[in-house]
Amino acid sequence: MTLSDFFDPDGIAVIGASKTPGKLGNDAMTNIESYDGTVYPVNPSSSGTVYGYEFVDSVHDTDADLALCCVPGPVLPEIIEECGEAGIEAAVIFAGGFAEVDEEGEQLEATITETADEYDITLLGPNTAGYILPHLDLYGSFVPRINEVETGNVGILAQSGGVGVTASFQLEREGYGVSAMFGLGNRANTGFAELIPALDEDPNTDAIALHIEGTEDIDGFLEACKAAETPIVALKVGNAAVGEFVQSHTAAPTQDTARYEDELVGHGVTMVSSLTELIDASRALADTPVPDGQNVGVVTAQAGPGIIVADALKGAGINFPDLSEETQETVDDLLQGITYTENPVDTGRPMPEFGAVVEAVARDENVDIVLVYEIYEDSLGYPVDELERLTDEVDKPVLFTIAGPNEALADEREAMEEIGVPTFQSPGRGANAVRAIVGSSLNGSEPEKRAVETPI
Amino acid sequence: MTLSDFFDPDGIAVIGASKTPGKLGNDAMTNIESYDGTVYPVNPSSSGTVYGYEFVDSVHDTDADLALCCVPGPVLPEIIEECGEAGIEAAVIFAGGFAEVDEEGEQLEATITETADEYDITLLGPNTAGYILPHLDLYGSFVPRINEVETGNVGILAQSGGVGVTASFQLEREGYGVSAMFGLGNRANTGFAELIPALDEDPNTDAIALHIEGTEDIDGFLEACKAAETPIVALKVGNAAVGEFVQSHTAAPTQDTARYEDELVGHGVTMVSSLTELIDASRALADTPVPDGQNVGVVTAQAGPGIIVADALKGAGINFPDLSEETQETVDDLLQGITYTENPVDTGRPMPEFGAVVEAVARDENVDIVLVYEIYEDSLGYPVDELERLTDEVDKPVLFTIAGPNEALADEREAMEEIGVPTFQSPGRGANAVRAIVGSSLNGSEPEKRAVETPI
Repeated sequence: MTLSDFFDPDGIAVIGASKTPGKLGNDAMTNIESYDGTVYPVNPSSSGTVYGYEFVDSVHDTDADLALCCVPGPVLPEIIEECGEAGIEAAVIFAGGFAEVDEEGEQLEATITETADEYDITLLGPNTAGYILPHLDLYGSFVPRINEVETGNVGILAQSGGVGVTASFQLEREGYGVSAMFGLGNRANTGFAELIPALDEDPNTDAIALHIEGTEDIDGFLEACKAAETPIVALKVGNAAVGEFVQSHTAAPTQDTARYEDELVGHGVTMVSSLTELIDASRALADTPVPDGQNVGVVTAQAGPGIIVADALKGAGINFPDLSEETQETVDDLLQGITYTENPVDTGRPMPEFGAVVEAVARDENVDIVLVYEIYEDSLGYPVDELERLTDEVDKPVLFTIAGPNEALADEREAMEEIGVPTFQSPGRGANAVRAIVGSSLNGSEPEKRAVETPI
Repeated sequence: MTLSDFFDPDGIAVIGASKTPGKLGNDAMTNIESYDGTVYPVNPSSSGTVYGYEFVDSVHDTDADLALCCVPGPVLPEIIEECGEAGIEAAVIFAGGFAEVDEEGEQLEATITETADEYDITLLGPNTAGYILPHLDLYGSFVPRINEVETGNVGILAQSGGVGVTASFQLEREGYGVSAMFGLGNRANTGFAELIPALDEDPNTDAIALHIEGTEDIDGFLEACKAAETPIVALKVGNAAVGEFVQSHTAAPTQDTARYEDELVGHGVTMVSSLTELIDASRALADTPVPDGQNVGVVTAQAGPGIIVADALKGAGINFPDLSEETQETVDDLLQGITYTENPVDTGRPMPEFGAVVEAVARDENVDIVLVYEIYEDSLGYPVDELERLTDEVDKPVLFTIAGPNEALADEREAMEEIGVPTFQSPGRGANAVRAIVGSSLNGSEPEKRAVETPI
């Protein structure tokens, strides 16, 4: 069994494809039609073409290696059998009504899994919204408009396809994209333990964002996390109180978040408490180098938001080191002593020297990670040149928290992203991103394990 | 001393106005020029016009009742004296360098405050970014592009002008606006105790968002909060660990958040932990009726995000009541028993009957507050008609959490806002908004006071 057919299929059979708008088999065609490989709409009840592809009666009439199954649960045993005979190596099963529902569904799931295993078919699902690989224009999902999500460098692996889709849309809305999004669903024969290594090896994925409801194979999960070299951020949801609802969803066992946290925090995995944090932490880890330590330097052009940031970081036990004497002098010269020149450094207002202040703090050997806050002013712009020099010459994470009207600052925000300075849209989100970097850089030998537990 | 001159000035003197772009006195002119009253640029060193208004040498040459002081601290004693003689009744002082800096600054502040009190001038500041009243096109601030912030129904009262500005820009970016934003700064003779009642009386303000660093007049503050009829949401920042930085900012005393929380929670004030929560909680309280109780009904079209919402609410101790038998039957009929029909109700996917399911849950007498989650699908849209009927006929808060590409759902999001269903952009933000409503509806007699302490 291999996952490579998901990442590089030659031909894709859409089983249950439809010409009728609003039908799942049509939505799936709408998303997959852009793929640069042959697409085969399979439906014995349809003829003619859909999106220029001619309908065929059976998967036997295709050269597909991947199947998107848009048919209801009861016919799937037969369909998967046919897929196996026809040489399909990977299949996405969208339908629900399996182990998450009742014993009958559980039996149905067992039957198709057995058949799939017999033919060595890798199954995504059942009960999933599918997966997307935007850099290949491969949108293997029925979710309308999911093909608008562009390419980014965060790979999402979500137990719930709906959560994967929600996170992908949020990244898209905020001007980013994803390298990959997989919705696991019921994990019939493919789960975290298989897909984490696959995303770890994926050259387009610089950070892995996990959404976990619970998994039987918790040892395989933990092992895969610990073995990965790509930074991982994890959101574990569904504690005891909502266990029944969770079980009804992806047939997940009820598991305490602590079970995951105890094993993962301090082993390069960052735990977060919300979807927005999952996104922000993943972006921060994807775009910045690993710091040498956990000391944070904060530079703010406005004291008030700077205090919010400092308060959040201090509250999470994060250390603001004293700046070196040399840095102090440089900063004092630049700011002429009128504002707060300790760490956090407060420049009082945006000013032409703001970039130089950021640079001085970032070059300080006491500082491992830099967080900047600045409200945008047209006449000054953001210090992109200084930041570019910095990211070229100084191997430390530098993060920038922006404020102002979108249309004014969009270009410079994008310029910063391109040079490896991730940007965040509120003081709390900037602080959370820094906490993720600190959390990720802790290792097992650290005496005090520390989860990112106080979200903003 | 009265605040009415801030809310309805006849004429505005911009003292230190300038023709030179990038200068504070020019930025202030750029923002104020749209005001529908006479604007007087005051600067003895300038002549000609700026934005069509002729420069005058002195505030004595104006009929202004409000002054925006764009001059540095050392000349302010003289300027405020002149303002008093010339009949100015309210003044905004942007300059810093007062009590927040050193003893000399403290003395300077005492001098101008004394003069202001003598002439009965209400001072905003010093050390503030000013204030805005978008519905009057009144942007009394030097912050570039702050005049792009549109009219909304949340009034922001921020100890830090920078935080007020940041929150205003975030509301604007997300498609909303503000009824008012006041940055208090050093609170020379006007602070929370004066401005909370003013916003409480302001017909354009349906919720008050407070940002607090610390205040000497804590009794006046607490009294004003308790007396207000408008819902209040408060973000208290600056705990002991960053006290020195806070002191250097708005000359605020170091005060524990608990000092505020103990007095306010259970008295109609909702405490939050981040700026985004402050915004979301304020919007939720501004747009929805006061619920009869704290029982929440959740309806989700996708289980995964629904579990995130349920988990967050349960974690905050919020109760999901059983649905009545009648509602259960209605929901079972609509969903044909294939998904989770307890509370939370999971419809499995968006469907034509989704609006009817929401309506059934909202009309259930066991439910006081409704939270909906749905990924947008073009072919179905959002159930605006059902929601409109609901908000007409059922006097309960109904909140909607959206997901999908912005351009697809923008129109229906706006339609929902207009009929009194506030929308939120992520599962966590939706859950936080509900927690704010629950927190706000607790009263002093409630045995267990509960702050919104587990932010998302």
